[in-house]
Amino acid sequence: MTLENKKSENLSAWYIEVIQRAQLADYSPVQGCIVFRETAYAIWERIREILDRMLKETGHRNVYFPLFIPESLLRKEAEHFEGFVPECAWVTIGGDSELGERLAIRPTSETIIYSMYSKWIRGWRDLPVKLNQWCNVVRWETKMTKPFLRTREFLWQEGHTCHATLEEAEEEIKLILQIYRRLIEEHLAIPVLVGIKSESEKFAGAFYTATLEAMMPDGKALQAGTVHNLGQNFSKPFEIIFQDRDGENKYVWQTSWGVSTRLIGAMIMVHGDDKGLIIPPKVAPIQVVCIPIFYKEEETETILEEVERVRETLLESGVRAEVDIRREYTPGWKFNEWELRGVPLRVEIGPRDVREGKVTLARRDTGERISVEEEEIVEKVEEMLNEIQKNLFERAKKFLEDMTEEASSYDNMIEILRKRGGFVRAEWCGSPECEKRVKEESGATIRLIPPGEKGVGRKTCIVCGRKSKYIVYFARAY
Amino acid sequence: MTLENKKSENLSAWYIEVIQRAQLADYSPVQGCIVFRETAYAIWERIREILDRMLKETGHRNVYFPLFIPESLLRKEAEHFEGFVPECAWVTIGGDSELGERLAIRPTSETIIYSMYSKWIRGWRDLPVKLNQWCNVVRWETKMTKPFLRTREFLWQEGHTCHATLEEAEEEIKLILQIYRRLIEEHLAIPVLVGIKSESEKFAGAFYTATLEAMMPDGKALQAGTVHNLGQNFSKPFEIIFQDRDGENKYVWQTSWGVSTRLIGAMIMVHGDDKGLIIPPKVAPIQVVCIPIFYKEEETETILEEVERVRETLLESGVRAEVDIRREYTPGWKFNEWELRGVPLRVEIGPRDVREGKVTLARRDTGERISVEEEEIVEKVEEMLNEIQKNLFERAKKFLEDMTEEASSYDNMIEILRKRGGFVRAEWCGSPECEKRVKEESGATIRLIPPGEKGVGRKTCIVCGRKSKYIVYFARAY
Repeated sequence: MTLENKKSENLSAWYIEVIQRAQLADYSPVQGCIVFRETAYAIWERIREILDRMLKETGHRNVYFPLFIPESLLRKEAEHFEGFVPECAWVTIGGDSELGERLAIRPTSETIIYSMYSKWIRGWRDLPVKLNQWCNVVRWETKMTKPFLRTREFLWQEGHTCHATLEEAEEEIKLILQIYRRLIEEHLAIPVLVGIKSESEKFAGAFYTATLEAMMPDGKALQAGTVHNLGQNFSKPFEIIFQDRDGENKYVWQTSWGVSTRLIGAMIMVHGDDKGLIIPPKVAPIQVVCIPIFYKEEETETILEEVERVRETLLESGVRAEVDIRREYTPGWKFNEWELRGVPLRVEIGPRDVREGKVTLARRDTGERISVEEEEIVEKVEEMLNEIQKNLFERAKKFLEDMTEEASSYDNMIEILRKRGGFVRAEWCGSPECEKRVKEESGATIRLIPPGEKGVGRKTCIVCGRKSKYIVYFARAY
Repeated sequence: MTLENKKSENLSAWYIEVIQRAQLADYSPVQGCIVFRETAYAIWERIREILDRMLKETGHRNVYFPLFIPESLLRKEAEHFEGFVPECAWVTIGGDSELGERLAIRPTSETIIYSMYSKWIRGWRDLPVKLNQWCNVVRWETKMTKPFLRTREFLWQEGHTCHATLEEAEEEIKLILQIYRRLIEEHLAIPVLVGIKSESEKFAGAFYTATLEAMMPDGKALQAGTVHNLGQNFSKPFEIIFQDRDGENKYVWQTSWGVSTRLIGAMIMVHGDDKGLIIPPKVAPIQVVCIPIFYKEEETETILEEVERVRETLLESGVRAEVDIRREYTPGWKFNEWELRGVPLRVEIGPRDVREGKVTLARRDTGERISVEEEEIVEKVEEMLNEIQKNLFERAKKFLEDMTEEASSYDNMIEILRKRGGFVRAEWCGSPECEKRVKEESGATIRLIPPGEKGVGRKTCIVCGRKSKYIVYFARAY
């Protein structure tokens, strides 16, 4: 019943095992594509619900654009095309005929969406345009598949906005970064560092890319979401022009941004332990599982009734509660099973609990068990779910902090990046050569340039010793 | 501002015009694919929410399977492959390499899903399996595109269940038909006839197909949803075997079923009028629009405050309310605009209303306007929304009934089908030849064989005069 792999010993094997054992995902007959099973999809539904509400509250509207992008359209922004063409899957046959022009399966939808924006947008009254879509995308990865983290098809949302000025586009970027941070930190309990990507790491075609970076247990960073300021890089080739208040025709300023099912992978890695998954209460499809414990036949009915009553009470107060009343398994077996599946809180109800009008609560994150009066169950459950949520975040936050350090020298940095991993904070002159050298010698890239610190340049570049321009965070990454 | 085309004069031109003018959809640069704009997508979100809740309440769970289906997998059930291969889009290139085996973009997901079921299902305890997915599908139509009704890509849900016995599969089919009927009749206000498809019209690979058929204003039927009993047709080639309670290995019994964004097309056609869309209140993204009417500058502020207050009051009681306070348009212009967009109820607030503590409500379906006390607004709005919902259904129901008749002879039937259209109820011997003759001479097909009446056979086949086996409904169809 217990997992064969320990998280601390072999993260990668543990990750695959826990995903399969907890039935989050399975490999499919299509190379590089996974099946999202019930629990993983239910977590995605929770993420979608939370993010969708925040986006709608800030004036974004959902739409749906075609899956297919004609090659000529994808070619319109040269840097974008070059960046994505190596990863495109191409439809060349429809029914029984060869297509005149091949169609890419969308790796991202800038080009198809902006070809419509140029038609829809006429004057300043049409701005801002703030659209979003929830959909599947395909990137023909050649590296090994890792469920949720790297698959050829994944699910995401992509937002695409148009603004009259650069300032308004910048405001939108701040807003989305704030929303993403809330989703990832407050709901998924994953702390992130926020900053700007270096030129070599930015989105193909962007003016600049902002990123939210999380730290995994093996010291590798994970890009949890990105927000792009596209400037006028797309509005020019796509001719998205509006007549401004002053009567002049101008190109719009654009942003695009996305988070994907990759967040599920981050959540598994960050919170899980040797017993299996730990799902943060706010995104857990099942927050509480109630398990009856009976030894004698004559107690069974009373206990089952009690378990059912507790479930009802919890459901009525909005707690996502479930029962496991299967006869063919022992309570111990069930404890393991639901721990493996990451349900944050367990309610145990045995004969003594019933006699004393109590129930036992067991926390998934700390293993702590407490006995509470049945009448206070809702209050106590809500309290503990909040504590679990908070504890998971704090634990991860502490780890992120522990795994972030200042390098004393170039050699010291390479040593840290190679061995322990984590984020290394250092000064950088801004040259791609220095960035490349670090990558070649350690596998690490610049994950982000923190805001405010951009262009400060107090000392010298950790690589070449010339005057530095930026504070940056290096790390190896997923 | 008014539509150029009248619904009664040229349904097809009216349909296209209303979709573009109300900004439901737009043609995309990809032939045969449309863009679902804000309003259409918001209607789809309402449909999804309603149906998803009903499915979850009856034990179904959502999942997500890959977009791609390897050709060898699609070939496993011969009839299924033959039925779908003419409509498949094929991916043949990934990145810069030719694929070893081409991949179909899912036209439907039986084969990819069942390849996993064979792996997951072992014993009777694993049954029933009741999974559903919300996704995009592609069918490479060669006929002309009609937004929502016929496009190469569309959105849908597909349910896929496995059961231990045929009886349980039949129960599932009844349940889903009931759920679909509720969605379509109670929420979309579209009355349907429910029955079984003839052999030639059933789903490729099914044992039999049940269908829900609606009647469009031009006398053509529209298949609004289908539910397939797959029997063991797929479980055999895919080897979905379970060990039953009696220890024997058996093939599972399966069902699959779906409704799609086509429902939006049906809703537009059935309820719209010469002024534009009429969206049934239960699926309307905006149920009520509040429009201020001011003539003098000094009244403006009071009226705007009042409009805002009314919106707040309605929102608080769960009514989806919006305001249109734009200064650059006249109230009359706004009335037309929101009528075009199909918002079921309008609240008008003018200086006299404010003085008298009243508001004016205007129904989109009948045009009726009534003045109500401001304090009863919530109650009255809810009442009127219910009445509109009811009226739309009853109107459509009466039309369906008027458009359904018994044929007195074969010539009479062909004449009705060719000219007026609608459903013609007739007796049929069951031979494909007779079915084919009707199709050749009138363009009509057997839309359904009503339950209970199946196999009754009172008189003689309307085509050949031999003993009849079935009561059937013929109609031309979308």
